[in-house]
Amino acid sequence: MLVTPEREHKLRTVLSRRQPDLTVLMEQVNKPHNLSAILRTCDAVGVLEVHAIPPQKGLPVLEEAEAGKIRTYNDTSGSAAKWVGLRVHPDVPSAFAYLKGQGFRIYATRLSEQATDYRAVDYTQPTCILLGAEKWGVSEEAAALADGHIVIPMLGMVQSLNVSVAAAVILFEAQRQRLEAGLYERPRLSPQQYQAVWEAWSDPRRR
Amino acid sequence: MLVTPEREHKLRTVLSRRQPDLTVLMEQVNKPHNLSAILRTCDAVGVLEVHAIPPQKGLPVLEEAEAGKIRTYNDTSGSAAKWVGLRVHPDVPSAFAYLKGQGFRIYATRLSEQATDYRAVDYTQPTCILLGAEKWGVSEEAAALADGHIVIPMLGMVQSLNVSVAAAVILFEAQRQRLEAGLYERPRLSPQQYQAVWEAWSDPRRR
Ligand SMILES: C[S@@+](CC[C@H](N)C(=O)[O-])C[C@H]1O[C@@H](n2cnc3c(N)ncnc32)[C@H](O)[C@@H]1O
Ligand SMILES: C[S@@+](CC[C@H](N)C(=O)[O-])C[C@H]1O[C@@H](n2cnc3c(N)ncnc32)[C@H](O)[C@@H]1O
Repeated sequence: MLVTPEREHKLRTVLSRRQPDLTVLMEQVNKPHNLSAILRTCDAVGVLEVHAIPPQKGLPVLEEAEAGKIRTYNDTSGSAAKWVGLRVHPDVPSAFAYLKGQGFRIYATRLSEQATDYRAVDYTQPTCILLGAEKWGVSEEAAALADGHIVIPMLGMVQSLNVSVAAAVILFEAQRQRLEAGLYERPRLSPQQYQAVWEAWSDPRRR
Repeated sequence: MLVTPEREHKLRTVLSRRQPDLTVLMEQVNKPHNLSAILRTCDAVGVLEVHAIPPQKGLPVLEEAEAGKIRTYNDTSGSAAKWVGLRVHPDVPSAFAYLKGQGFRIYATRLSEQATDYRAVDYTQPTCILLGAEKWGVSEEAAALADGHIVIPMLGMVQSLNVSVAAAVILFEAQRQRLEAGLYERPRLSPQQYQAVWEAWSDPRRR
């Protein structure tokens, strides 16, 4: 027996709530505590796999990542990294090509007057949230390629939120919409995808 | 002239949106980046003043804080700390006595089956969100004194969110409700409170 019945029940419950059509793309997010907080949030709203364009000096938690390869990067970023896949892209055009090929609409988070209130977006559609670097935000290149620009309303003196905070505010709005739409009530993965993730998750070396 | 007309306009706009009846109480939150992210979020949703019970070793950003005294702790925690007051309390009973005396309902954030979904709470009423320490969460003592227990639904493998992330998810739900209720449309401070904060904010040494 690979896993106990209780463990199997827990793993299958979580797996049946995973949302293959909700994700984030992190553009040069470089602080380990931010990456780690974003992964915990992604796990909590059912994101199956996240995307990153690493900063020049490499990913904060996975310097040895090979571009384009899913890694579990277990031992580097807290336990959420065990349960959320990471796909690394070398640059903006390749990340966009990949995500658009998968049918995602990509929303760039932008601190601009022209951006739409994040609450006005329909997150039950295939959605990728583009997050910018702590210092510079989303690049002009990526902003120009995005399908839309969204902003969280700031009613105070400070211009921007912490990036992991902004990610969570948007992702929990997506969770709210998807709960309402019943998207967590039955498996969203194809049988092949489900089986592949199940095999990885139930591997006893993961615990 | 103390401030330029543009600056005065900005300051007065923000001040007229400040919500004296929305706050957080941080119980032994001890990582500087979490405190800093929480303050940025509080500024963005219009919190006037936050509350903290410092960890044993002292507040992460304001070791020299005197209990019960509002400080601006400007130079220690990024710019949000200039615009959000901090009131320090020595322990749980004094913090609760103070907040209850001000008419707050205090909601403890708890990772428990019995806790209410955070979206079911009416945040247009005087509300304080009690946040727990990174390692231990909200203490039993504080949980027992709280008016209610709330939780953000976790649909993944990981048990908890980062504390600054959890704070933001709840506070932006409060912002949503308060926007809808029109609570940011006219000043919420008494004329005396407004004048006192205005004098502090327009002091040229603050810029
Ligand atoms: C600290 S901010 C970057 C600030 C940068 N100076 C700029 O102008 O974009 C880091 C990232 O957090 C996210 N973010 C912060 N505040 C946000 C808001 N109010 N709305 C949407 N995203 C936000 C965005 O992804 C942003 O790129
Ligand atoms: C990392 S958690 C503490 C975990 C701790 N092991 C526990 O059992 O409470 C730190 C704080 O973040 C907040 N928090 C984290 N996840 C939350 C959730 N799903 N709902 C509500 N608050 C949460 C709470 O304030 C909590 O005390």
